[in-house]
Formats: sequence, C-alpha cells, structure tokens
Amino acid sequence: MKMKKFINGPENIVSEVLEGMAAAYADKIRLDGNVVVRARPKDKSKVAVITLGGAGHEPALSGFVGYGMLDASVVGDVFAAPNAMAVIGCLRKFKDYAGILLVVLNHAGDVMSANMAMKMAQRENINVKSVLVAEDISAGKGAPRQDRRGLAGCIPLIKVAGAAAEEGKSLDEVLKIAEDFNSEIATLAVALTGCTHPQTGEPIAELGSDEMEIGMGQHGEGGGGKSAVLSADETAEIMFGKLADSLSVKAGDKLYIIINGTGACTPMEMSIVFRACIGLCKNIGANLVGGIIDELLTVQEMAGFQMIMCRVDDSQLARLRAKSAAPYWTSLGE
Amino acid sequence: MKMKKFINGPENIVSEVLEGMAAAYADKIRLDGNVVVRARPKDKSKVAVITLGGAGHEPALSGFVGYGMLDASVVGDVFAAPNAMAVIGCLRKFKDYAGILLVVLNHAGDVMSANMAMKMAQRENINVKSVLVAEDISAGKGAPRQDRRGLAGCIPLIKVAGAAAEEGKSLDEVLKIAEDFNSEIATLAVALTGCTHPQTGEPIAELGSDEMEIGMGQHGEGGGGKSAVLSADETAEIMFGKLADSLSVKAGDKLYIIINGTGACTPMEMSIVFRACIGLCKNIGANLVGGIIDELLTVQEMAGFQMIMCRVDDSQLARLRAKSAAPYWTSLGE
Repeated sequence: MKMKKFINGPENIVSEVLEGMAAAYADKIRLDGNVVVRARPKDKSKVAVITLGGAGHEPALSGFVGYGMLDASVVGDVFAAPNAMAVIGCLRKFKDYAGILLVVLNHAGDVMSANMAMKMAQRENINVKSVLVAEDISAGKGAPRQDRRGLAGCIPLIKVAGAAAEEGKSLDEVLKIAEDFNSEIATLAVALTGCTHPQTGEPIAELGSDEMEIGMGQHGEGGGGKSAVLSADETAEIMFGKLADSLSVKAGDKLYIIINGTGACTPMEMSIVFRACIGLCKNIGANLVGGIIDELLTVQEMAGFQMIMCRVDDSQLARLRAKSAAPYWTSLGE
Repeated sequence: MKMKKFINGPENIVSEVLEGMAAAYADKIRLDGNVVVRARPKDKSKVAVITLGGAGHEPALSGFVGYGMLDASVVGDVFAAPNAMAVIGCLRKFKDYAGILLVVLNHAGDVMSANMAMKMAQRENINVKSVLVAEDISAGKGAPRQDRRGLAGCIPLIKVAGAAAEEGKSLDEVLKIAEDFNSEIATLAVALTGCTHPQTGEPIAELGSDEMEIGMGQHGEGGGGKSAVLSADETAEIMFGKLADSLSVKAGDKLYIIINGTGACTPMEMSIVFRACIGLCKNIGANLVGGIIDELLTVQEMAGFQMIMCRVDDSQLARLRAKSAAPYWTSLGE
C-alpha cells in the first residue's frame, strides 16, 4: 500500500515545503537556503528573534517568521534538528543586530545544535542568548526542566518575545520578557490516532481503535496516559485540570488558551474543546481572556490537539495581541 | 467502535462549536443565536455582506465574520443549510444598512433557503441581492451553472466583496465586483480518504487503500475521477491543468492560488502542492501573484485539498490583500 500523502521524493520534502510556503507568502518571507527569513528585514537597532527545528510540523516553525514574530527559522529535516553549522551560519548573519534571542524547544537534537552554535557564537563575540521552551507537563508536576519537552507553547512565546523586540527592548529585556512568559505556560497533548512518517512511511504512535492517549510528544513519544476514548468535555476537564494544577492557577488569574490541532482533529472538535474551557475557567474563578483555535504546530495527520494554557498579565496579553504579520499569525494590534 | 472525534452529544455540536469560537475570538465576533455577527458592527452607511451554510466545515463560514469580510453568518446543522426563517430573520436585522449582499454556495438546501428568504425580503422592501458561488469545475467545462457546486472559492469571494463594502461601494457596485471575481475563479477538490459524519458516525466517501479521487464535493459527493494515488506533482499538474483550461488562462494572466486543506491533509503536503503550482504557472507564462496554504473550509477529517485558482486584476488583488480582521483571515492591508 502506497503511503497516502501528497509528496514527491521523500528526500525533497523540506526544500519543496519551503519553496511552496515562500511563494505563497512572498510578501512576508523569503528563503536563504534552508533558513526562512523576513522579506523585509527588521531594523538592526532591534533584537532579532531566531528559532530552529525539524520540519514536518507545518506551519511551525517557519510560518511564524514575519513582522512582530521571528526574524529567522533554521529548518532541519523531517522531525530532525538542523545541525549546529546551519544554526551558527544563521546567527552570523544577524550579528550586527542589537542582539539575538534564540528560541530552543527542548528536544535532544535541537538543544545539541543550539548549544554548539551558542558556544561558537560566544567565541565570535556574537551577542546571543537563548530561551529553552520546555512546557510539556506530561512528565508530572515538579519534573525537572530537562525532562519536559518543548511543545507548541513556543509559538505564543515567540509572539510575546517578537513583540518586545519590535518595541525596541534590549536583549536582556527581551530575554526577561520571554522567560517570564515561559514560566507561566503549560501544555498537554492528546491523540486519538497515530500518524505516518512522510519519509519512511512507518507509523508513529499506534493507538487501538477505542484508545486515546494524553501526554504524547510531538513525534509520537508516549505520554503514559492511554485510556478509552472520552468525550470532548471529559478530555478537556482532565487536561485543563492538570494544566491549571501545574501552574497553580487561582481565582482571578487571566488565562489565554490555545487549542493547537496536531493534524486530523477538526476545527469543529477544537472549538468544542475550547468551549469546555469556558466552564472550566468559571469553575475555578479564572478569567478566560481569549485564545486561538487553529493548527499552529502539527504532527503530520495525527488526530489530536495540544491544550496550551498561558497565565498572562496585561502587558503579556497586549503582546499576544500586538501587531504581527507572519504567514500564520497576523494581528492588527488594535 | 466509538467514533474517534472529540465531541459531546451529537445534537449539541453546532451550538458548542459556535460558543467555543465566539469565546476564543470575542474581540472579533459574537453570537446572536445561531448567527455569528461582528463584535463591532459595521457602520450602517455601508453594504452588509452575509452568508449562510451548514456547520462541520470549520473554520468556514463563520470564521470569516469580521472587519473586511462578513457581517453575519447564518449557521445550519452539520452539513445542512439553515432554514429560510433563520435567513430572513438575519436579513431583517441588517435592513437599515446601505444594502445586503447575500453570498450563497450552490448546494440545494442553501439555495432553497436563500431564495425563500430573498422573496420574503423583497416583499418587505429589504434591499438585498445575492451572488451564487458555483465554481467547482468537476462537472466539466461548459457544464451549466446549476450543476456546479459551490466550494471554498466562496472565501476569497467574500474577502473581495467585503473589502469593496468597507470602501463604501453601493450594493450594485459590491455585487458587480463580487460577480466579476466569481466568473474568474475555479476550484477542484481531491481526496485520499473519506471521513466520518460527526453526528451519525457513518463514513462519507469511502476510498480504497491505493485510491484517490479528484472532483469530490464538500460532503463526499463523488467526482468521478478515481485513480491510483499519485504524487504531489502529478496531482497538481492534473488539477492545475483542468482549472487553467476552465478559465482559459493565457500567458500574462495573474493567478492567486489557494490550497485549502479539507482535513487530515498536512500543511506540509499542501505547501508541496503549492510549490508545484510555481512551475505550472511558469509553463504557461502565467504570473503567480500569491496565495494561501491553509484550512479555510474543511470536510471533517478528509485527507485532501481543494485547489482554488483565481485570475485577478490589480484591484481584485488589492482587495484580497486589503485590511481584514476575521478570526481566520486577518490582513494588515499594506
């Protein structure tokens, strides 16, 4: 049986994806090899925000390059980090900016490439600091940071850091704003089905016909939370409860919630799950101040979603709503 | 086997979807029963743009209510048109505007409800005119308009009409702008898999394990184009060829192309398909001026996409890019 995906040669996936995305959004982004950069670069008097990561998660991460978000996205192969040379090559191109914030998701390959590139950059006196996104709570409350995966919480973090950079904040200020936000986000994933690796054709994360799993990673890593398929409300209640507990959410807190579809989960279902969060917020006296129902970071055609809970203050909320013009997150910034 | 979807009671799907969407995007939309309207209504000195349609296609159609696009979306049940009374009820609320453009997709239920509501509106001296979107070319070149289904080409049409309405154009002018655009769009769908009706649990449009189908409708209606699974480039070439032929595209024409994911098709695959269009445009000397790679109108978790070809002039392109702030189409309008 042929793999049911619209691809050509498996070895050409990444370059073809980037060429397609750059052509559709030529007003916003352009390609510099396997690095996606802004069509209209930011003024060098400001801090650049850069990230790195594997492909196969579209629109993440490259779809968030643009005004108010990323300056560059260094792209690896499908589900594989770019190497350190690709990362340092990108950092060098931004060395004349007011500084560079490197956003790193906590996956072994990404962290290794980022750390090596950071060391080289420091030897070259490039002013770069990094923030490690590790907001997956599936390892349990109190699990050490290194055991927590970086999930789609990186996207609102990039939005907040990108907005701060556009405001003209210094690198230390942008870093602090990113770290403050980073400590107030928590994510948990759920899947009803696995998916297929588009290069190997092999299944990722198989689930039984009446099974779902809470706590999955972005590449089918297990989360230990297999159960029978639950309703939208039941699923939302479990996930929301764990997220709110991990952030110790209390009455009066302002919550911005993102339901990030990972593939075959429909916006219909995601909207139903978001609706469940309205009542769950009310139950604990939290104030649901808005959110997103969309595919930001996918795991191929996996039928599932990530619930991302962000506890925000007014300045963070303003940055989430600030003007931006990335292909997959445009905001008028009113 | 339990249906693998995150829902609650099947009978509550539509109301729960709308409540979730309205809560996430409360800055842009609000609910008036099963009608989604703008959070901040347009000035009555302008023409209102309204549409109607079944649910289950999220984010369409209600996700495109907002500045620069729709003023209201009258929502039916899953895959079922709203009744005429719901439509006339909505039209009455906009009777004091400079006029109403009703955007109708060519499906039997939608057309019947729209026609009945239009007749009632005319008796009540409500100034409403309609545009029928029927841009699916699967019935073949030269097929009569009534045999052509309305697919996701309605979304860019709503964008263009909505921009014209914001400019302060009269109803006749908005109608002409919409009709001119309407005659220059063509859409063709392809699917690798069927999907499941979220209320009945019944499969829609079953396809064999090595089978795909070009020409499907939005509810699993057959298109007569079953074949073995083809590569992204092969699939794009066939679809692009039919679309370009139906519009009699010639060298120098400006094309705006949308790859609309219908469900489980990944943005990765859709980007690869868009890339194929770059070469296909070059082959015929057409000018690819931009586009969209996203889920605008879904068919549950169907793994497929609609390729929407819009031949545009500069004023239409400007309206596609004009300022808008709907939940699922925001543009800075630079």
